[in-house]
Amino acid sequence: MALTMRALTESQLQALRERVGPQKVSRNESELWVHARDEGGHGEHPPDCIVYAESRDDVVQVLKFCHHERIPVVPWGAGTSLEANPVALYGGVCLDLSRMNRVVEIRPEDFQVTVEPGVVHYDLNKQLSRYGLFFPPDPGAPATIGGIVANNAAGIQAVKYGSVKHYVLQLEVVLAHGEVLRLGSRAMRSSSGYDLVHLFVGSEGTLGVFTEITLKLVGIPPEVSAATASFPRLEKATQAVVEIVQAGLSPAALELMDPVTVRDINAFKGLELPEMPTLFLEFRGNGPEVAEDVRLAQEICEGNGCVSYQSVLGREERDRLWEARHHAYYASAAANPGKRAIVTDVAVPISKFPEMVEFSRQKLEEFGLGGPILGHAGDGNFHVGIFYGDEEERAKAHQVNEAIVLKALELGGTATGEHGVGVGKIAFMEREHGAGYRWMHQIKKLFDPHGILNPGKIFPPE
Amino acid sequence: MALTMRALTESQLQALRERVGPQKVSRNESELWVHARDEGGHGEHPPDCIVYAESRDDVVQVLKFCHHERIPVVPWGAGTSLEANPVALYGGVCLDLSRMNRVVEIRPEDFQVTVEPGVVHYDLNKQLSRYGLFFPPDPGAPATIGGIVANNAAGIQAVKYGSVKHYVLQLEVVLAHGEVLRLGSRAMRSSSGYDLVHLFVGSEGTLGVFTEITLKLVGIPPEVSAATASFPRLEKATQAVVEIVQAGLSPAALELMDPVTVRDINAFKGLELPEMPTLFLEFRGNGPEVAEDVRLAQEICEGNGCVSYQSVLGREERDRLWEARHHAYYASAAANPGKRAIVTDVAVPISKFPEMVEFSRQKLEEFGLGGPILGHAGDGNFHVGIFYGDEEERAKAHQVNEAIVLKALELGGTATGEHGVGVGKIAFMEREHGAGYRWMHQIKKLFDPHGILNPGKIFPPE
Repeated sequence: MALTMRALTESQLQALRERVGPQKVSRNESELWVHARDEGGHGEHPPDCIVYAESRDDVVQVLKFCHHERIPVVPWGAGTSLEANPVALYGGVCLDLSRMNRVVEIRPEDFQVTVEPGVVHYDLNKQLSRYGLFFPPDPGAPATIGGIVANNAAGIQAVKYGSVKHYVLQLEVVLAHGEVLRLGSRAMRSSSGYDLVHLFVGSEGTLGVFTEITLKLVGIPPEVSAATASFPRLEKATQAVVEIVQAGLSPAALELMDPVTVRDINAFKGLELPEMPTLFLEFRGNGPEVAEDVRLAQEICEGNGCVSYQSVLGREERDRLWEARHHAYYASAAANPGKRAIVTDVAVPISKFPEMVEFSRQKLEEFGLGGPILGHAGDGNFHVGIFYGDEEERAKAHQVNEAIVLKALELGGTATGEHGVGVGKIAFMEREHGAGYRWMHQIKKLFDPHGILNPGKIFPPE
Repeated sequence: MALTMRALTESQLQALRERVGPQKVSRNESELWVHARDEGGHGEHPPDCIVYAESRDDVVQVLKFCHHERIPVVPWGAGTSLEANPVALYGGVCLDLSRMNRVVEIRPEDFQVTVEPGVVHYDLNKQLSRYGLFFPPDPGAPATIGGIVANNAAGIQAVKYGSVKHYVLQLEVVLAHGEVLRLGSRAMRSSSGYDLVHLFVGSEGTLGVFTEITLKLVGIPPEVSAATASFPRLEKATQAVVEIVQAGLSPAALELMDPVTVRDINAFKGLELPEMPTLFLEFRGNGPEVAEDVRLAQEICEGNGCVSYQSVLGREERDRLWEARHHAYYASAAANPGKRAIVTDVAVPISKFPEMVEFSRQKLEEFGLGGPILGHAGDGNFHVGIFYGDEEERAKAHQVNEAIVLKALELGGTATGEHGVGVGKIAFMEREHGAGYRWMHQIKKLFDPHGILNPGKIFPPE
């Protein structure tokens, strides 16, 4: 039986209201439009209604009903994604989890916390700081933990701390037909059967809906040292990145910004960074090794012709720089009014990073398109914002995007380091995974035989 | 169609010989018995024949044929496991991968290596050391990389470096029907679809056979410092473990041995360690933070009444201690001649570690059974060797084992931290995973519809 591709009927809406309570179901026009798109450029698709879940039982009720009625259900966190990951392409129910935002239990003695999916990571870290603990993955945007886990987001600190998947110990998941699974354990290691936790991490709401998440935490390191380094040429900056990683230094952040990015954030945030290829570096640790790492990193930068290496002194200046970095995407959007962007998200082995960045720069130039190049260089992951206005530019932007992704795959990399597949990367899945992609699809069909969960994401519509 | 539960026919053997070459197929009696058991106590089950695969194509040929003929195929690495993980309970083909032991490619510039599954981790680390790199997981025994990945083994250094799953970037897997999948990428982060790599890590040969594995590596830290600490009472030692972890120290190893273990290894290796509850600690790092961590650890141990804290000076003494630790299992077996053992492998959140160890000690005492308690304390994972002689003791040993596992689950832990499920932990899977266990089974049936791959492991026989 195919999915309902039409609007929900009035009787279906009524049934939903009865199941979860009428105040949790909204068809308010402006709310529908708020939930019609994320921060990416994939257009607007309002759902037929929004259900604001307040408990696991609400999620179960919605899924049981929609499974039976073949209505799409698309989980929604904060809408800060870039690949339309939580957008209801085929209408149906937008299952907004932002009200499920309780920090259920902090267990500082085990460096663990259990949260509901709607908790925003900034808020979580604020609560954790009183225990001297934090959850390292930070995608920049005010994303929810549920969204971060669903996308296996990584962000700026993954180069030191690893991506989200290293931090997820347990998941409570509601399957398409409403069954509740409790996956994983609180032990720090386990070889107990198949790793279903990691199957669900990064599944982008296509296999189930998270209702509770237990995370591993890290102690806040007392020593922090940050710096900016400006280079005359992009390839010198990327070479410095490679050498810092290869030297075994373990920066908490190692971010690259090209001159376009620097110009955009200078304009957007009133900063005066030299408009040159720039690295943001941050080191965190418990003691004297931090100063030593900073010194070595400076040596490497200078060995690569760095013209300015500035230690960032004080928390305020550091916060301002990171805020600027986090807002780079908005800054570039502001610098390209009326334009939309395709944002690439390739990641390659670190030794291929300079080649990959240079290739991307040349492709932009070759097609006469503008846009920033920036990224989580220490992990070999970076983004190109390929801005376009008219139809002709749009076609070119797609060609540049395709060329960049195919190059990354050729270099042993991936189409998406942290944004997820959503709709934007579907075209490259077969190429990246070969037969593995078909097996992913088999697993999807096993867990969600009617295809109600986030249809049109990761896999093309049936 | 049910599995063949009888010996292979002569014509089936002949067909196998034709497919892979006759010299790779053995029915030599003594070889069959060498492959009849691992190092655990689950009895002897010789396969019908052994195929010594020398290439991916051999693996494909064996699986295609056995899938068609419904013959069990059980992958074999070094046979150092403890839960009968590679034992052919239902006969069929033992697929010995030890000849596929090439280090395919070392890429020091990316901290990566690609190996065949039969490489022994000691040999790999020997080859890597010339690049200043190593693969941290070390289960103690001379296991193969294929076996380590199949069991998601962890070993002594996981407390600092994480378990195997953090290190597997790519897998080449042959599925039951002979299809070859290439999973993962060489990028350090990816959000590209479902994480099939981690589905296969820890699947114990029940979903597919690895033919190539790409691992992430770590730079060898120049500073190493080790120590032993002896405590008057077991609960003081376990409390010190908790405090060391909670202080945010990051030992490369934090191992607990009870007096029985110390006595056994003293006897086995001619050592003279005080026969008291003992911690082995090791710290590794790049510089002065190592000495600082050692100092803090010593303070914590002394605060818990440690009567002797000995820095281990020099590589030779350290190697001798670790060798003794690695041989603890053999030492205890030697101290219990004619007896067999059930080895528990529970892991619990660190705050529950003292309670869990004390519970185990009391259970042994209550049932009048002997055996060592030792383990990877820093991860909350430990082993009790429950030795038994006659049938009455055997029944008691099973009761103790069951009590320990159920207690661990009650405390939020897992039945198996690193040994895998094999046959020995099947009884606890439903209890640990609830409905998740049935979904694991669904995935098994999806990938291996005839159930030829390692039947009777992780799941009960059909």
